[in-house]
Amino acid sequence: MSASSRTLNLAVIPGDGIGQEVVAEGLKVLSAVLPQDVKLETKEYDFGAKRYHDTGETLTDADLDALKRHDAILLGAIGDPSVPSGVLERGFLLKLRFAFDHHVNLRPSKLLPGVDTPLKGQPAIDFVVVREGTEGPYTGNGGTIRKGTEHEVATEVSVNTAFGVERVVRDAFARAQARPRKKLTLVHKNNVLTFAGHLWTNIFTKVAAEFPEVGTDYIHVDAATIYLVTDPGRFDVIVTDNLFGDIITDLAAAVSGGIGVAASGNINPSGEFPSMFEPVHGSAPDIAGQGKADPTATVLSVALLLRHLGYETEAARIDEAVSADLAERTGKPARSTSEIGDALSVRVAG
Amino acid sequence: MSASSRTLNLAVIPGDGIGQEVVAEGLKVLSAVLPQDVKLETKEYDFGAKRYHDTGETLTDADLDALKRHDAILLGAIGDPSVPSGVLERGFLLKLRFAFDHHVNLRPSKLLPGVDTPLKGQPAIDFVVVREGTEGPYTGNGGTIRKGTEHEVATEVSVNTAFGVERVVRDAFARAQARPRKKLTLVHKNNVLTFAGHLWTNIFTKVAAEFPEVGTDYIHVDAATIYLVTDPGRFDVIVTDNLFGDIITDLAAAVSGGIGVAASGNINPSGEFPSMFEPVHGSAPDIAGQGKADPTATVLSVALLLRHLGYETEAARIDEAVSADLAERTGKPARSTSEIGDALSVRVAG
Ligand SMILES: CC(C)[C@H](C(=O)O)[C@@H](O)C(=O)O
Ligand SMILES: CC(C)[C@H](C(=O)O)[C@@H](O)C(=O)O
Repeated sequence: MSASSRTLNLAVIPGDGIGQEVVAEGLKVLSAVLPQDVKLETKEYDFGAKRYHDTGETLTDADLDALKRHDAILLGAIGDPSVPSGVLERGFLLKLRFAFDHHVNLRPSKLLPGVDTPLKGQPAIDFVVVREGTEGPYTGNGGTIRKGTEHEVATEVSVNTAFGVERVVRDAFARAQARPRKKLTLVHKNNVLTFAGHLWTNIFTKVAAEFPEVGTDYIHVDAATIYLVTDPGRFDVIVTDNLFGDIITDLAAAVSGGIGVAASGNINPSGEFPSMFEPVHGSAPDIAGQGKADPTATVLSVALLLRHLGYETEAARIDEAVSADLAERTGKPARSTSEIGDALSVRVAG
Repeated sequence: MSASSRTLNLAVIPGDGIGQEVVAEGLKVLSAVLPQDVKLETKEYDFGAKRYHDTGETLTDADLDALKRHDAILLGAIGDPSVPSGVLERGFLLKLRFAFDHHVNLRPSKLLPGVDTPLKGQPAIDFVVVREGTEGPYTGNGGTIRKGTEHEVATEVSVNTAFGVERVVRDAFARAQARPRKKLTLVHKNNVLTFAGHLWTNIFTKVAAEFPEVGTDYIHVDAATIYLVTDPGRFDVIVTDNLFGDIITDLAAAVSGGIGVAASGNINPSGEFPSMFEPVHGSAPDIAGQGKADPTATVLSVALLLRHLGYETEAARIDEAVSADLAERTGKPARSTSEIGDALSVRVAG
């Protein structure tokens, strides 16, 4: 679906906890930024803890069929302490990423002026992590024998295919090519995970030949965490596997302003399935319903959504509004979730 | 081997790059701190890149037999760009950890006064990571089919056993019990890696019942990286799997003074095989042979070694000497590797 269709047909999944609150603000800003001739159609879906408790369902085939008909999906957060760990993660979030082949998990990190970081010296941070989204240790391969006994053995299998690695590596090279610094870093652990490591490294080297302008390097995941706190400015684009990407993007969010401002896209680049956009943070049940959640990460996820659908001007307006809003926060009293949403709506409209 | 045998029979593996330089200083300080009636016997082994190039060998059965006869092993660093990634890691370092059943990989993190951290506000950091050392994704299980083709599939299998998890979890509880704060955090990713995650979580809960004084919590590995930069003071003892431990201990080292001061022990608690002590840093070929490497991490690894063998007084003397040395560094010109070793030797002897 491109901008020219002039209808934006969105699936909205508020989810659990603060998901409800932040998604409302995301939609508010979206409505404010869209050109008048674009018709916004939204349909809300009730996935999450409540539906699971009421029906036992997390995500059915009928749900997937319904979601498939949208241009994109906006998700708040899924997860609640009342549901056993893993049930909603595997049964909803990962099921959706796999079903819709969201193989490019895009997570930009930019430390904006005025935003606090736990790091000294306010380093210049501006990179994007391209995390593989459909393979690695996230496939659910593995199993357990002799469960609950002293002889239990549990395995987890990381599955990596040339097909899956090459498409995400190529996507990352293209993104690096389009950025001013044109640099791509492969993060893996190829000295220990030698089977998967060789596959990733060989494909990275092969695809690099097609992008002679892009400078490349390789860093082990353990060392990458060191650089993320001692020299985050060295990164431009990072490509990495599903699990390493999960870990380093939380760290990346922490050093570049916290998960309150970290956005992400679960992208199906071919457009065969709708892509899904969500804040990196979780449902934060401890502050849910109190108007304390910062909707900025969701609003920035809306910008990623718009950019993905071809609304570049509108995406840029949101990015600018967020930058301006953050720059003016220092020393001011904390605002509620909806106050921040209102302020951003005014900025993008103005 | 306990302190009462009054002979310390040490295998010394300087290894590659700066390994040579830092191990020399570690031994210097060890000689200076040992009581006069303890006879120090050392035998040097030539493992590493040069031996691999000369003979094709990394670690033979005969080598293992020879190493087995020592009370403990002191290692500098293994690794060189001239050797393909993985060859020395899997062929030497991991082979040794597995052969000698080094299932407790001990990595303390303490931010000492005067030591610089990339974090704002000089937080109070004092925790120890107990990383499992013989299972998880480090087992070398997995493989590759259709190598080099567009249909290549590479797998890595994380293997987790009740036996392996329980012994390391119990070791971590005992360590937490012996510390003033008595707190143990399990770090895993049990919402995604549900097979291994359930095994770890269930065993953690079961063993917790035996240590009612120890407070416990659970944190996903991605969130743990956030806390390590926003609130590292919350950690006392962490227990985690081999790969997560690898990643978070590099980050832990970075925030608590850098890998120049990060020590580690690869411990076989039963004493059936000698334990191995090594700095967390690598061979740093870029600065090798220039007297620029900081031997502090190796010296602190010597302290872990002494403590493991029952020389608590001497271990504490080294820890104090290092604290005093670090506290006086600020504003002074940089010293060479051997100057730092000399200064620490004087302090521990005096
Ligand atoms: C909730 C969990 C399944 C998820 C992941 O591990 O991918 C989350 O941590 C994320 O990063 O989006
Ligand atoms: C060199 C490598 C095999 C090793 C590991 O991954 O365990 C290192 O990173 C470490 O942490 O000791």
